[in-house]
Amino acid sequence: MAENNKVRVAIVGATAYTSREAIRWLLVHPGVDIVALCSRRDPQPRIDEVFPELAGRLELRCEPIDAAALKGRVDVVMMCLPNGLTMDLAPRLLDAGMRVIDFSADYRLKEPAEYQQWYGKEHTDLGNLARAVYGLPEAYREKIRTAALIANPGCYPTSAALGIIPLLRAGLIEAKDIIVDAASGISGAGRDPKPEHHFPERHETFEAYKIGEHRHMVEIERTLDPYVRASKSSVIFTPHLIPMERGILSTIYLHPRQPVSTEHVMQVFAETYQNEPFVRLRKSPPRTGDVARTNFCDLTARVVKSRIIVLSAIDNMVKGAAGQAIQNMNIMFGRKETEGLV
Amino acid sequence: MAENNKVRVAIVGATAYTSREAIRWLLVHPGVDIVALCSRRDPQPRIDEVFPELAGRLELRCEPIDAAALKGRVDVVMMCLPNGLTMDLAPRLLDAGMRVIDFSADYRLKEPAEYQQWYGKEHTDLGNLARAVYGLPEAYREKIRTAALIANPGCYPTSAALGIIPLLRAGLIEAKDIIVDAASGISGAGRDPKPEHHFPERHETFEAYKIGEHRHMVEIERTLDPYVRASKSSVIFTPHLIPMERGILSTIYLHPRQPVSTEHVMQVFAETYQNEPFVRLRKSPPRTGDVARTNFCDLTARVVKSRIIVLSAIDNMVKGAAGQAIQNMNIMFGRKETEGLV
Amino acid sequence: MAENNKVRVAIVGATAYTSREAIRWLLVHPGVDIVALCSRRDPQPRIDEVFPELAGRLELRCEPIDAAALKGRVDVVMMCLPNGLTMDLAPRLLDAGMRVIDFSADYRLKEPAEYQQWYGKEHTDLGNLARAVYGLPEAYREKIRTAALIANPGCYPTSAALGIIPLLRAGLIEAKDIIVDAASGISGAGRDPKPEHHFPERHETFEAYKIGEHRHMVEIERTLDPYVRASKSSVIFTPHLIPMERGILSTIYLHPRQPVSTEHVMQVFAETYQNEPFVRLRKSPPRTGDVARTNFCDLTARVVKSRIIVLSAIDNMVKGAAGQAIQNMNIMFGRKETEGLV
Amino acid sequence: MAENNKVRVAIVGATAYTSREAIRWLLVHPGVDIVALCSRRDPQPRIDEVFPELAGRLELRCEPIDAAALKGRVDVVMMCLPNGLTMDLAPRLLDAGMRVIDFSADYRLKEPAEYQQWYGKEHTDLGNLARAVYGLPEAYREKIRTAALIANPGCYPTSAALGIIPLLRAGLIEAKDIIVDAASGISGAGRDPKPEHHFPERHETFEAYKIGEHRHMVEIERTLDPYVRASKSSVIFTPHLIPMERGILSTIYLHPRQPVSTEHVMQVFAETYQNEPFVRLRKSPPRTGDVARTNFCDLTARVVKSRIIVLSAIDNMVKGAAGQAIQNMNIMFGRKETEGLV
Repeated sequence: MAENNKVRVAIVGATAYTSREAIRWLLVHPGVDIVALCSRRDPQPRIDEVFPELAGRLELRCEPIDAAALKGRVDVVMMCLPNGLTMDLAPRLLDAGMRVIDFSADYRLKEPAEYQQWYGKEHTDLGNLARAVYGLPEAYREKIRTAALIANPGCYPTSAALGIIPLLRAGLIEAKDIIVDAASGISGAGRDPKPEHHFPERHETFEAYKIGEHRHMVEIERTLDPYVRASKSSVIFTPHLIPMERGILSTIYLHPRQPVSTEHVMQVFAETYQNEPFVRLRKSPPRTGDVARTNFCDLTARVVKSRIIVLSAIDNMVKGAAGQAIQNMNIMFGRKETEGLV
Repeated sequence: MAENNKVRVAIVGATAYTSREAIRWLLVHPGVDIVALCSRRDPQPRIDEVFPELAGRLELRCEPIDAAALKGRVDVVMMCLPNGLTMDLAPRLLDAGMRVIDFSADYRLKEPAEYQQWYGKEHTDLGNLARAVYGLPEAYREKIRTAALIANPGCYPTSAALGIIPLLRAGLIEAKDIIVDAASGISGAGRDPKPEHHFPERHETFEAYKIGEHRHMVEIERTLDPYVRASKSSVIFTPHLIPMERGILSTIYLHPRQPVSTEHVMQVFAETYQNEPFVRLRKSPPRTGDVARTNFCDLTARVVKSRIIVLSAIDNMVKGAAGQAIQNMNIMFGRKETEGLV
Repeated sequence: MAENNKVRVAIVGATAYTSREAIRWLLVHPGVDIVALCSRRDPQPRIDEVFPELAGRLELRCEPIDAAALKGRVDVVMMCLPNGLTMDLAPRLLDAGMRVIDFSADYRLKEPAEYQQWYGKEHTDLGNLARAVYGLPEAYREKIRTAALIANPGCYPTSAALGIIPLLRAGLIEAKDIIVDAASGISGAGRDPKPEHHFPERHETFEAYKIGEHRHMVEIERTLDPYVRASKSSVIFTPHLIPMERGILSTIYLHPRQPVSTEHVMQVFAETYQNEPFVRLRKSPPRTGDVARTNFCDLTARVVKSRIIVLSAIDNMVKGAAGQAIQNMNIMFGRKETEGLV
Repeated sequence: MAENNKVRVAIVGATAYTSREAIRWLLVHPGVDIVALCSRRDPQPRIDEVFPELAGRLELRCEPIDAAALKGRVDVVMMCLPNGLTMDLAPRLLDAGMRVIDFSADYRLKEPAEYQQWYGKEHTDLGNLARAVYGLPEAYREKIRTAALIANPGCYPTSAALGIIPLLRAGLIEAKDIIVDAASGISGAGRDPKPEHHFPERHETFEAYKIGEHRHMVEIERTLDPYVRASKSSVIFTPHLIPMERGILSTIYLHPRQPVSTEHVMQVFAETYQNEPFVRLRKSPPRTGDVARTNFCDLTARVVKSRIIVLSAIDNMVKGAAGQAIQNMNIMFGRKETEGLV
């Protein structure tokens, strides 16, 4: 920790959208100093050249990703790299005494074979994979406090898990018949200018993608499994793309084990989340616009015929990425959990 | 029919979005004359004052809705009024020898009690209700040919029915376990400037609405029922609003009665729709942008775990309203079904 | 001032977009307590019912606008009412010892006849009109410190004035040949759901409005006049509407009195704004997206043929309204000018 | 001409947005057959693979660009290639007896040195450059009838020229003091997915670009020059990007040679355009949304203080590209000028 008692943060993969979002929040966090930004670029850019909005606010030049160079300057490293890269870097950062919050999927799936199946790459850091804590504070707050390595959850899984876990834990629903129909703004696709995200292609259109094949499907299942008795969950996951920048809405269809009322479901949510600072129960259907640029997850439920329908809205860039990372950081460093986030 | 062999069309409720869409298409339809536009406004506007895009193309002044005044001038009336008004007007138009295509819900639900339940109003034209034909050409083409009164289908029901009927008819799926998760552009809400559709409120947000309470839920069920053996269908319907002008995507979760493959499902669709001019089977997920301003319905299916997922995209203003009405008109007047539509 | 040394703020007209924006910023301002929200509604709403995004963050119920009831509880009142209402209320608030920052145009034009001409209403508070300070810190910082009543500038005038004043003061340009071609996001039109701002009408279109008739034209002129020697300025102002939520870009065409280079113009800006915390000079053309949700004004200039072209971007809701009001408040209460704003 | 009296059209550069737009219009043009699509790709795609919206409507496979292979099959070739390529291909197509409509800038600037200056490439087809006719029907209709080679105008120049030429010809305005402040939807940037047009970068932002450096500035000047007596025009041109797909609005500031009224200016426009099928005079400011997907140019004017302000709206893809090309084609082949366009 710095002498001023501030958490010294480095961001690796500093030119990603998730990094930009983290920088925006960290700049106004009273208990943080951004001490380094690292990228794989050569030559290294000044961050305000990459994100002109940062001019006059943060004018650090990026530096190479070098654990030795960060050692002693940095308390925690936020890793905003593409999947498959952090597992090469995290061991060195951890060995050098830094804590790590990984935005990628590298440490989310505990089963190495499953990682290989879904990410097409052998996992090379099995020791840390076993030790990593899944950074969903509403589920793992105590473990997060002392974790050296946090697997920051995916955006869709965060949205889905917060809407399903309480009902699963209460034994209200079948674990084998879960449908998560979700839709996301385009920032979730990252900064790489793919043809399908060219403005004229993406504006004024709506579509599903990776139907039943998205990697977050298995992440949702593994996040739910601890709450299933003597079995595993089965989730059908259909993501869609919305012509807007940010926001995720999950519309979740659950199969009640016995007839249940909307009031009962809401009561279970209310009890689960009564002390949670970032989960808000709503009477009317949540709007992504109401959680945009906040770390909140807005939830409601309805019983319709034979199903419980849960609606869960987050900002994919905040509760779905950088905000949750900062929430985790606050917990890890004994700070107020909401500091810098409300 | 006019001497020039053109169909003489009047549009009632001419200042609605659906009317504007009908006008756009009818103006380039080689077999049609728009002979009258009727509205409830006083004073009556010229249509290009209401829709400035029509300047120089159609400069008719609207006239009151008066069956006597239309008699003899008009072959078919397209009714673009809000729900609950057409049933007062249609009898007079029909008695005066005109055929009627109703864009509202007044003649869609055959059961008067159900109409009253969902639309909050007693049905006052039971005779015509019994005679009206549901204007989904892919299901009722033969009846449409000779119908005097067409209940033009709702936008969501069109999209859903085209994706479900073939599988229901083939006996592939359970009729009691159907989930239709759909999303629509904002034009579906009509021209009335409600607070929730004010640009800054609607832009950059996504939400569900009328969860399990939307009137199209029962319309979907009644449209499916004829294909269910000895029972009725049960549909859970969740509509969402997309920050774009037009387009509907339905993501439909169906419960196969026996294990089935994606290929088999696609084969059933292929056989059903092989001669349909406006249904296109796609390999990749349909995009609303690809059917925008067309009368096509784009369909695909995937089997994922225990469900068949059908994706069905239409333009809510075209195949979901004005385009389908013109398709019906073409059928009713013995014209080529695709005339003016491709 | 409160015992905790925080500025106690009331917002009047609390259900406006500008109020919402002020609330968002004030909630994270470390030196402020929001102590009252006032509205003209009956019954008075809780603010999170009006703006669901505030749930869990600010759950004050609005109260009537009553100077007596605010007296002693409030240090400064932010008035977010439509034009023509503040001049009735401000005298009472000032008399009760509160300072006032008015977001409306009521105290911006010093000449009562001009107010009447442009706002169609006789000015009824001439004493305070004479004393009010135009709250553009870059021009009137010293007067703002001690002002009891601030006329918070209009959004377009802020954007225009910051791009023109330095060149006028330096004697570089003709005061009689100024063209301000500007474009704004739709939030500038307020929360009232007018037909022309209905989502399907506003999406995917661009247009000019109130060409040469917008009230901000005269406000720009009066803001420039103090920098003109022995004469008055003449401004042609053409605003446009952009299908987006927030942001203003002014493209300003200025007539140099003598041939001048881009470098010289930029040098004048650099000298003028070297110590200004919220004006940023850019090499590349400013983007509204880069100032969105910030209090910055991004500026650049180009000499093209016979004109200096200045480009000036702000967020109409921030530097053009609530952010500038908070900047003024910080100055008025001796706080760091950037507090709560970066 | 084909035996069925239809114009046989080939499109070269078939995978461009302008080609897609041409295809959309030509498919519903009653007097046209699309007989070939040519591209530089290898392998050659089927056009509905490139543009899935065309499935079931046009399923031609693209072929290489080969004048010999097109000879005898094609009456007119629409060239949708990037700048600098058509001048290599047009001579062969013309020699083979086809007429050519070039969407690129290759034949727009009559002065080879100017082409080289602005397009960075020596012009290699000077003979055809001299013979090419600038395809603005409102200015050059008679020459278009018999032209073998049409230089189809740029989008911004079309919008600007239609708003300026009548006033220049009437001697009302100074040719040396013309400011064209214009804004365009993003389709104008083409299909190439550049980082700055990635959806999240382009959505919800507005900016100027190529200020005083855009190639269309000189094209506007050269288009105006024939209407200037004994001199050349001087135009300052500032384009902007609007977060929408299509549409251009030019806001044009003109310097009247003598005091003039709005009515007089409108009268000059009315006389000039009274028989023009695609120019519409408006009282209220034109909206790009009202000309979207039409070949119209909507115009209005206002005199404000010392300037005439002309507002001119077109669809950059239609009157600014494919629609104007078809208008030219109709004229060239003796068809009704509006055929297939209204």
